[in-house]
Amino acid sequence: VPSAIGVDLGGTKLLIARVVDGVVDEVAKQDTPSSGGPAAILDAIRLGVDRLRTPDVVAVGVGAPGPGWPGGLVGPAPNLDGWDRRVEVEAPLREALRLPVSVLNDVNAAAVGEHRLGAGAGVDDLLVVWVGTGVGGGLVLDGALRTGRGLAGELGHMVIEAGGRLCGCGGRGHLEAYAGRAAMEREARRRHEAGRATKLVELAGAKRMKSSVFAKALATGDEVAGELLGEAVEALGVAIASAAALVDVQRVVVGGGLADRLGPQLVERIERATAAQLFAGLELEVVPARLGDDAGALGAALVALDAAGAH
Amino acid sequence: VPSAIGVDLGGTKLLIARVVDGVVDEVAKQDTPSSGGPAAILDAIRLGVDRLRTPDVVAVGVGAPGPGWPGGLVGPAPNLDGWDRRVEVEAPLREALRLPVSVLNDVNAAAVGEHRLGAGAGVDDLLVVWVGTGVGGGLVLDGALRTGRGLAGELGHMVIEAGGRLCGCGGRGHLEAYAGRAAMEREARRRHEAGRATKLVELAGAKRMKSSVFAKALATGDEVAGELLGEAVEALGVAIASAAALVDVQRVVVGGGLADRLGPQLVERIERATAAQLFAGLELEVVPARLGDDAGALGAALVALDAAGAH
Repeated sequence: VPSAIGVDLGGTKLLIARVVDGVVDEVAKQDTPSSGGPAAILDAIRLGVDRLRTPDVVAVGVGAPGPGWPGGLVGPAPNLDGWDRRVEVEAPLREALRLPVSVLNDVNAAAVGEHRLGAGAGVDDLLVVWVGTGVGGGLVLDGALRTGRGLAGELGHMVIEAGGRLCGCGGRGHLEAYAGRAAMEREARRRHEAGRATKLVELAGAKRMKSSVFAKALATGDEVAGELLGEAVEALGVAIASAAALVDVQRVVVGGGLADRLGPQLVERIERATAAQLFAGLELEVVPARLGDDAGALGAALVALDAAGAH
Repeated sequence: VPSAIGVDLGGTKLLIARVVDGVVDEVAKQDTPSSGGPAAILDAIRLGVDRLRTPDVVAVGVGAPGPGWPGGLVGPAPNLDGWDRRVEVEAPLREALRLPVSVLNDVNAAAVGEHRLGAGAGVDDLLVVWVGTGVGGGLVLDGALRTGRGLAGELGHMVIEAGGRLCGCGGRGHLEAYAGRAAMEREARRRHEAGRATKLVELAGAKRMKSSVFAKALATGDEVAGELLGEAVEALGVAIASAAALVDVQRVVVGGGLADRLGPQLVERIERATAAQLFAGLELEVVPARLGDDAGALGAALVALDAAGAH
């Protein structure tokens, strides 16, 4: 069976999986190099792929945390060291590995994974929402991933409140500024500094306010955590309802680190918030992602197999 | 040359055009029946088509002011008399005319017209925004009209302000509640009743506040008219920028009664408002529609020709 290797390049973790017949056969996980810039990261990918490579591997797919452009470039990717521009990913990896390499946005890769093998299976029109450090999106229309000129699916940068909260990208009022973990952390610290007591800062200290910190604070009934999550849910409802009015998808799949951690109750709250904003006549279900951490690597491998013509 | 008849069924006017080789050959315009319900309207269409019909006409396309559903149904269409549900349009017209009939949303029809023969020619990914009594949208992706399950392209019902102004559809904070002529009229009268002097009410009296009334009031520097238009432009900027983040279109075409009346300066203002909200990296031009009142009928005729297999 022709198989492929899928790479999910994240801001903190690099996950590499050999995919045989739509199933993850072997997987390796390491920290993403946090120094050395794009060269160090591409080197880590090359070494990781070489370690998992078997003779039946015919292609490599890479999902990366930034826009994927024609020609196999990716970037800017603010969560990767030194990756502040468009960086060539396809050409250097193809030359080093002597295999065809496909490159796409990480959430787009996860969307393909969930569409083919996960919670989006069986529908032709699907919006995948990835709620993690930021908020990513992937759009499958008529069964095909919509990439546009490289930036399609950027649900996290839809404007849900004109002139609202500052987003990591410099824009104002974007969904990500309300529902991304990093933005929620910034807002929690701001409210804490303004005098609000919150378990979020107590638990995280000076370290990153992980998804598990949000889960713990919510479990104790922490007020600030409850407010921030409520605002995130409302913002997701507005953006998803607006997206549905524009493209009329049947199903929304919600995944990502924060969503996985907070579980199906969060997805149910997002579904209710969406229904409250949804244009009359639209029908839409909101369901949890099913592939967990493997979605991106699986999807990237499937895209690479397609591109290599080995369906 | 195989030709087709395109019908643009509007809330006030019924425009019927014979289209030969992509050009309007003959056109007839009448008032849309305002009593007698759907039966009277379908009768008017049948009679109008019969009058323009020549032996080379092989198909009929109907653009209607409501969602178009699989099976040739349209509705609800709040701007048509008695059309408060899904109404069969394709079957009765096909049987009466003995010709294949295609049915779609009016702004989707205009989008096809502008894409093939107007301001959207030459691009594969296009958003058409129709600013008239309401705000409609049509989305062309990879060269094909996106219809979804019948409601795709409903830009006017994207949420631009959660909990904001009441929309004609019963929703809150929709674009149409800020940028549709009818909603702007409601808001103008509300501000007038709250004590603001405005030429808008002076000029319109108890009658419909037409686009020409807005144009005249703006020309005299009327403050309320200026505010309302400013709010409409901002709302359009937010919705268009959000749409671009989601689907990454290259071009936005702005047409419709109010937009045509206020001219290219309005379109330039919308372009600037969009640019101010646009996600970094996206590129987008906003241009005026070019086909004027004929866009819908032309587009409907082209869709009907395609469906009849006579390209």
